[in-house]
Amino acid sequence: MSIGVCYFPEHWPHEQWETDIRQMADAGIEYVRMAEFSWGVLEPERGAFDFEWLDEIVGLVGEYGMEAVLCTPTAAPPRWLVEERPEIRQRDRDGTVRDVGSRRHYCFNSDAYREETERVVRAMAERYADDPRVVGWQTDNEYGCHGTTRCYCDDCADAFRNWVREEYETVDALNEAWGTTFWSQQYDDFEQVDLPRPTPAQDHPSMLLDFARFASDSVVEYNRLQANLLREANEEWFVTHNFMNLFESVDAYEFDEDLDLIAWDSYPTGHAQQAGGETTADELRAGNPDLLSFNHDLYRSVLDRPFWVMEQQPGDVNWPPHSAQPAEGAMRLWAHHATAHGADTVVYFRWRRCLEGQEQYHAGLRKQDGTADRGYADATRAAEELFDLDHVDAPVALLHDYENAWALGEQSHAPDFDYWQLLQSFYASLRAHGVQVDIVHPENDLESYDAVVAPTLHLATESLADHLTAYVESGGELLLGPRTGVKDEFNKLRPGLQPGPLSALVGASVDQHETLPTRFEPTVARPDETDAEYAFRTWAEWLEADAGEPLLEYAGDDIEGGRTAAVRNAVGEGSVVYCGVWPESELANDLVGSLLDRAGVPQTDVLPDGVRVASRDGHTWVMNFRSDPVAVTVAEDASWRLGGPEIDSFDLAIAEIDAVDELSVQIRE
Amino acid sequence: MSIGVCYFPEHWPHEQWETDIRQMADAGIEYVRMAEFSWGVLEPERGAFDFEWLDEIVGLVGEYGMEAVLCTPTAAPPRWLVEERPEIRQRDRDGTVRDVGSRRHYCFNSDAYREETERVVRAMAERYADDPRVVGWQTDNEYGCHGTTRCYCDDCADAFRNWVREEYETVDALNEAWGTTFWSQQYDDFEQVDLPRPTPAQDHPSMLLDFARFASDSVVEYNRLQANLLREANEEWFVTHNFMNLFESVDAYEFDEDLDLIAWDSYPTGHAQQAGGETTADELRAGNPDLLSFNHDLYRSVLDRPFWVMEQQPGDVNWPPHSAQPAEGAMRLWAHHATAHGADTVVYFRWRRCLEGQEQYHAGLRKQDGTADRGYADATRAAEELFDLDHVDAPVALLHDYENAWALGEQSHAPDFDYWQLLQSFYASLRAHGVQVDIVHPENDLESYDAVVAPTLHLATESLADHLTAYVESGGELLLGPRTGVKDEFNKLRPGLQPGPLSALVGASVDQHETLPTRFEPTVARPDETDAEYAFRTWAEWLEADAGEPLLEYAGDDIEGGRTAAVRNAVGEGSVVYCGVWPESELANDLVGSLLDRAGVPQTDVLPDGVRVASRDGHTWVMNFRSDPVAVTVAEDASWRLGGPEIDSFDLAIAEIDAVDELSVQIRE
Amino acid sequence: MSIGVCYFPEHWPHEQWETDIRQMADAGIEYVRMAEFSWGVLEPERGAFDFEWLDEIVGLVGEYGMEAVLCTPTAAPPRWLVEERPEIRQRDRDGTVRDVGSRRHYCFNSDAYREETERVVRAMAERYADDPRVVGWQTDNEYGCHGTTRCYCDDCADAFRNWVREEYETVDALNEAWGTTFWSQQYDDFEQVDLPRPTPAQDHPSMLLDFARFASDSVVEYNRLQANLLREANEEWFVTHNFMNLFESVDAYEFDEDLDLIAWDSYPTGHAQQAGGETTADELRAGNPDLLSFNHDLYRSVLDRPFWVMEQQPGDVNWPPHSAQPAEGAMRLWAHHATAHGADTVVYFRWRRCLEGQEQYHAGLRKQDGTADRGYADATRAAEELFDLDHVDAPVALLHDYENAWALGEQSHAPDFDYWQLLQSFYASLRAHGVQVDIVHPENDLESYDAVVAPTLHLATESLADHLTAYVESGGELLLGPRTGVKDEFNKLRPGLQPGPLSALVGASVDQHETLPTRFEPTVARPDETDAEYAFRTWAEWLEADAGEPLLEYAGDDIEGGRTAAVRNAVGEGSVVYCGVWPESELANDLVGSLLDRAGVPQTDVLPDGVRVASRDGHTWVMNFRSDPVAVTVAEDASWRLGGPEIDSFDLAIAEIDAVDELSVQIRE
Ligand SMILES: [Mg+2]
Ligand SMILES: [Mg+2]
Ligand SMILES: [Mg+2]
Ligand SMILES: [Zn+2]
Ligand SMILES: [Zn+2]
Ligand SMILES: [Zn+2]
Repeated sequence: MSIGVCYFPEHWPHEQWETDIRQMADAGIEYVRMAEFSWGVLEPERGAFDFEWLDEIVGLVGEYGMEAVLCTPTAAPPRWLVEERPEIRQRDRDGTVRDVGSRRHYCFNSDAYREETERVVRAMAERYADDPRVVGWQTDNEYGCHGTTRCYCDDCADAFRNWVREEYETVDALNEAWGTTFWSQQYDDFEQVDLPRPTPAQDHPSMLLDFARFASDSVVEYNRLQANLLREANEEWFVTHNFMNLFESVDAYEFDEDLDLIAWDSYPTGHAQQAGGETTADELRAGNPDLLSFNHDLYRSVLDRPFWVMEQQPGDVNWPPHSAQPAEGAMRLWAHHATAHGADTVVYFRWRRCLEGQEQYHAGLRKQDGTADRGYADATRAAEELFDLDHVDAPVALLHDYENAWALGEQSHAPDFDYWQLLQSFYASLRAHGVQVDIVHPENDLESYDAVVAPTLHLATESLADHLTAYVESGGELLLGPRTGVKDEFNKLRPGLQPGPLSALVGASVDQHETLPTRFEPTVARPDETDAEYAFRTWAEWLEADAGEPLLEYAGDDIEGGRTAAVRNAVGEGSVVYCGVWPESELANDLVGSLLDRAGVPQTDVLPDGVRVASRDGHTWVMNFRSDPVAVTVAEDASWRLGGPEIDSFDLAIAEIDAVDELSVQIRE
Repeated sequence: MSIGVCYFPEHWPHEQWETDIRQMADAGIEYVRMAEFSWGVLEPERGAFDFEWLDEIVGLVGEYGMEAVLCTPTAAPPRWLVEERPEIRQRDRDGTVRDVGSRRHYCFNSDAYREETERVVRAMAERYADDPRVVGWQTDNEYGCHGTTRCYCDDCADAFRNWVREEYETVDALNEAWGTTFWSQQYDDFEQVDLPRPTPAQDHPSMLLDFARFASDSVVEYNRLQANLLREANEEWFVTHNFMNLFESVDAYEFDEDLDLIAWDSYPTGHAQQAGGETTADELRAGNPDLLSFNHDLYRSVLDRPFWVMEQQPGDVNWPPHSAQPAEGAMRLWAHHATAHGADTVVYFRWRRCLEGQEQYHAGLRKQDGTADRGYADATRAAEELFDLDHVDAPVALLHDYENAWALGEQSHAPDFDYWQLLQSFYASLRAHGVQVDIVHPENDLESYDAVVAPTLHLATESLADHLTAYVESGGELLLGPRTGVKDEFNKLRPGLQPGPLSALVGASVDQHETLPTRFEPTVARPDETDAEYAFRTWAEWLEADAGEPLLEYAGDDIEGGRTAAVRNAVGEGSVVYCGVWPESELANDLVGSLLDRAGVPQTDVLPDGVRVASRDGHTWVMNFRSDPVAVTVAEDASWRLGGPEIDSFDLAIAEIDAVDELSVQIRE
Repeated sequence: MSIGVCYFPEHWPHEQWETDIRQMADAGIEYVRMAEFSWGVLEPERGAFDFEWLDEIVGLVGEYGMEAVLCTPTAAPPRWLVEERPEIRQRDRDGTVRDVGSRRHYCFNSDAYREETERVVRAMAERYADDPRVVGWQTDNEYGCHGTTRCYCDDCADAFRNWVREEYETVDALNEAWGTTFWSQQYDDFEQVDLPRPTPAQDHPSMLLDFARFASDSVVEYNRLQANLLREANEEWFVTHNFMNLFESVDAYEFDEDLDLIAWDSYPTGHAQQAGGETTADELRAGNPDLLSFNHDLYRSVLDRPFWVMEQQPGDVNWPPHSAQPAEGAMRLWAHHATAHGADTVVYFRWRRCLEGQEQYHAGLRKQDGTADRGYADATRAAEELFDLDHVDAPVALLHDYENAWALGEQSHAPDFDYWQLLQSFYASLRAHGVQVDIVHPENDLESYDAVVAPTLHLATESLADHLTAYVESGGELLLGPRTGVKDEFNKLRPGLQPGPLSALVGASVDQHETLPTRFEPTVARPDETDAEYAFRTWAEWLEADAGEPLLEYAGDDIEGGRTAAVRNAVGEGSVVYCGVWPESELANDLVGSLLDRAGVPQTDVLPDGVRVASRDGHTWVMNFRSDPVAVTVAEDASWRLGGPEIDSFDLAIAEIDAVDELSVQIRE
């Protein structure tokens, strides 16, 4: 487990370099990420590559006992390239060019840009193919950032036509798959297929889903071009890419063959402000631990191996609405939190606050004058405390699929229905019970999991139904959430009632669904236990139980009162619960707690908000994202690897215990 | 009085058709509306018409004793047509093309599209000219939906130039009429006339008003093309079009000669959410009865004959922010409510939930699996209960004019001033008194009305003043609202004070006007009765009474305190009240109640919100749009055609009584 | 001190003119402003100038003893001109043309439009060069209104390239100055320099700052063209331009050599609604006096001589969200308020409500029917009461710079950080102490001021630091606000800590900064006086005191608790306070009160909100912008030039006293 840092030597005078590198080594840093966005200095004019500066700094990195991770510089093509080949630029849906002047001003489907990419990546790869100080590569930077996954240029229109042609082969098959009789939308020829354009009313949802698939595939293909070039040059190198917080438009699962390592960029206090709702003071100081670990767990699960945090917030940052100073120790807490969730390396972004350009309001580990910034001591301390660990072994899987996000994103059917927030409702409850969770694709092999939670499986095929039924029949415990089994893979409604192919497994079908404003504060209750009501939000399905046993019914005397809201069905050696509402936290905790009980997964009592535990390799981290201190109760003979049972605000401890149910946490007054 | 349904056989397998048609007949359905948006299957390629499927389904409709209403399919030209003649597409104000991919992607002023329209309508009309099972036609679908009344393409620019030239004949007349000396906006030549384009500041209000007139006229002209073709083919057919909820950009009154029947599309729970403010739980379950009946009364009044609801919400729908399930019985209540307000036929949309395309989240009378959906029993029951009735005979007229909506919409002068909401304030008060109301153009013949309410007559000519004066002089009772007589027909201010040509009739003039934020909660009071204050909102005029007698004055000690807010003037055998503020409901009820008293119109005590009565042909409907039950008190010998004096939530009763003042309603606890 | 009025004879019938002019003279009006927007009537077709109407009306003005101020008509080029030379039109950032149809549809950098401007201005200037009744000129109207300072047309792109080339001479210097290594934004050639275009992410802040400078310079240059033509024709004429409320994009200081007189357009009830937050009822009736006087003080300070209000709100206006009637007397109060702050002349806009075009909802001194409107009596009374006065002599300077507004506007770093509001926080406190303030550029000569307040000096050079240090060393008292000394003149971060070159003067440096949501309601306190807490908002700097003495520290037990928030440093014969937070009013009053004490500037006790005093030439105005009356306590022998110690709502009094500390004001119950 190591610490790294992102460094941009090209932003600093040459005479500063060795001091910087020496100070990094002194801080305990092991990896230095460089060359991101450096095309302008690497190739100041066409063909005139200048690698000397990079050679020198890579040399210094090696001299001081560290290793270099290089980036391909393709996220920012220089002006001379845009001037020569202006067709590489993306276009907005209304045709407006996305011009040079910031970054990401290129189209993934541009043949011209793929040529240029090949040229620059090949040059870099060849230059460092035999350099032992370079251990791996980051391709590009944050694919899709700033809304650039989906482009509306002519190259993309051609590429989408080809993608559709390849997918459906005949135009009849296309018309059938999408369902184009509606509103006379039939295609006579593949040439009529086009990108989504400004139209008077809504677009066809099946076209939109395929466009989202195509756009994601275009990024995968573009990345493959880079990965292959790097692997050809040196097969020892790891190749990675830095993904982003809850990033919807690019399907990370599809990168599994093209990357050796998955990384993501973690900015806890920024992400907390993007999450919707009013950010609390503690979140503004340290972020929301469940939002962070959702990303950790997702990106760890893609390859089922340790991941990197490629950019770790080092202090205040430039882009969220408000940038409060992170709490004392937060930068250390985040490193441990990532490690507890399976990280291998945490790379702070950046070494020193940059004097020029768009990110001047972004801190580094050092201030602009070179002195230590607030994150420096945290990073140094984390570097000392981290130790080697086996991979995380999670007993529970949470099913997640980008295609569901795309389909539901285009037809949310309520302003407050959000795929990612629905997932968070279930995920946060798993975290509140202290359980490690893999976040995996629904078609993943599930047999290693004691329990599976599927917050929604909106698009569902027969084969997915078979897959889940087999899991339950062989003893698996499954919790299914609402809007499941609604659509087929083409985003068309099924002729049968919901949950479609999953109806037999669930033992119930959906009579009606409705969406309700959150201000109505609707509730459900257990049948015959009308005094304990559980709040839900936004989405409600009226179930007709068949084999399934009613588990929850709608409370109150409005028209849905007494109708079934959730069922449980025993199938083979396992069982399944289908919950037709979006649960608020108390209900989610109840459903998840019961699931873990049935599955025999050790769990904690419900943890206080902002306090989280996570186990890895025989160690259990107790992490306090709150400004008030907490006390941990553990088995008498438990020993502490780091800290102890009294944990300060924004601090952590590491216990050596066997299972999380040996432990409980209280807030200290 | 009948029930119908909208059916799209082209969305379903052929083997399903006869089952569907038989089930419709079983449900008591009499009319089946079809072929809307069907151009793609009717003419899969240019000239290759395929009517066989439609022949067959029309045959089945007839076989099962029902009648077919066909639609021209012009609201959705197929891709091959757009590909051949791309110039038919509309453009946004900034020039962006409104492309194929949804619906309504054609311009009303496109000669190319008029040719294509003529071709397809003629083919259909000829095909069914002698078919007795086809009884009538709907032209196109929802003209102007999705903001398509106003287009900014080159064809429209040419057409607008011609419209202006025809209207004004010389450019001097144009300059004089619009008043173009302001900001040097003079036209030297008609060729300089252009559509509203993106400009640095506000557009010229007189140009905007004529552009709105022109755009509406373009739709009227386009519809006339279709109506004439249909009438030529078979003069027995009725020709109708389905208008929309409070739809502003198309002047329905102008269709009077080109349609035999007016229809509109009623989605009560959706419209309630479009109305502004926070939708109540009852409105989310059944809609706002006054909003619905405003449309019923408007579209009934255009031809002064029974209208159709061409699309009746059958359950949950896809497009409002939230789609709660309608209350039990709501789908039946809406049918009766429409009938009580003068409907002839209520056509549910649609038969079955569609599996493909943009409207998958829209219920039908049958679910996607073919079983009965929630609206089915309601529709069947309504079909049984409806009976034949004479036309509604309304004693009161509410004056309404699209041109006022256009002029005020472009110069609202306050973010919260809305023409339609102002009308609703007066209209809801009439409904709260149980009185039937025609909603008619100000220049309409008024002599048959005992009382007339004009919430605002912003644009006013001398001839309109003469018309209203004659009405009052001969005994009419008139209630006028604020912002009346401000502008001439060219949207220019009058040189005299407001209400301009109506000043003599009103017996007062406007010294000043002002707009106030609603949070200030301003009030008026009767002179010398300062303890009873009535709230108003947004708009306040300070009146100088002349012949008129002050009726209300501003309350409080702010600067307007004590100034006159409303006057009453006796003129000839009638009288007029001019109210210079936008009344909140208590004040509106007071003004309207007094008006009805003076006019001798029978009225109820103020009805509870959501409970409404309506009389037609010797019957009086009592309709409960509330979730709590109500009790009706009637004359002892009153008999009940349907239900009785105890009315359940979302239920109704029909009493056979002579006048609504024989009846009162209380909410039951 | 005089009253004027804006008149548009071209909007009225010829037979009305003499009546209008006579009535103006009767009202006490001395100046009549005319010909604004009159190009269409002055030159109905190219070259065919028609001056006869203007000659006649200028003649009438002279005949009735008044003087004419003419406007160049360039703010509204006529249609024939746009038709001939369409390239004069501006473009939006996305390329959309800003078309003819309102006003300001021309580009400042269009050579074509400069030619046309020269032609029309020369013709007018020559026509009236020897006319004694024309005493001065207003160039154009409200440069930059409606977002027209910054244009994105090809002419502007060329002009910006030239501007940059001239500024930096070599492309290397440009790259160095802006810092283009970041994200590979290097320029290879000046030809690559372009206007800000739609880009995927943020734009380069150094480019944006220079673009803002360039755009302002373009307006200055365009105005110079007009001013030179007018001065050439008659050097006796004054040349002025009418600026706007807190108008950011045009640097008024840069007009100092090209204008003889600065004017601005004052619409108090509109400006109050633009200021953010919820407008109070009193503000809706009379505006916010501090917002108004900020403009008075700014535009007075540009040339350090009496200014004009070129457009004074006469009653209700057309453009704010709500337009309540101004309070009785407000139109008179505003005239006196302007005079107390240094105005020479107050010109009401407009004589009579216009019947046509975009401003029909704008009152005049006369109603549309020619009778007196509400402002008429106020204006007439003001005309009688005004008397001649020497120039305002302010003991305090508030430092203000458009470049800081531009830099902070592009990188506010918090949604609620606003340059102008920050200035208002300090300025309002100065006004609450009754002190006259000049609002001057930081590089201004400061020696005449007893105290200087600099709410923020974000961009700071060494020479500015020297300038301020010299001021303090020689006995000046300086109060500095947050975000000072952050950037160099190119909008790049400095390598040293903030406040950069001002650190030695301040005796402290900034360890960290953070932004906080206002709902957190953070506070500071004096060290060792924890019970008195002062609220601040949005911005917080953690200071490290060096020579400076800690003055304030953060209160509470959050992570910043106890850190230094403000310091005071004695330097030479003066002292400086640096405040690292944005103070709420109590803290601002405390800081400003202490500053004035140290500087020996006479001050009042903190005045009630909405009550303000201002001294000029031995007179002190007490002005009540509240609806409740106030009482003034003064030295026994003080005499009253106007009114007396009991002041009614929206009224004023003028005392003849020596210093404002002789006076205090209480609200009367
Ligand atoms: Mg996939
Ligand atoms: Mg009309
Ligand atoms: Mg300057
Ligand atoms: Zn593209
Ligand atoms: Zn058009
Ligand atoms: Zn330009």
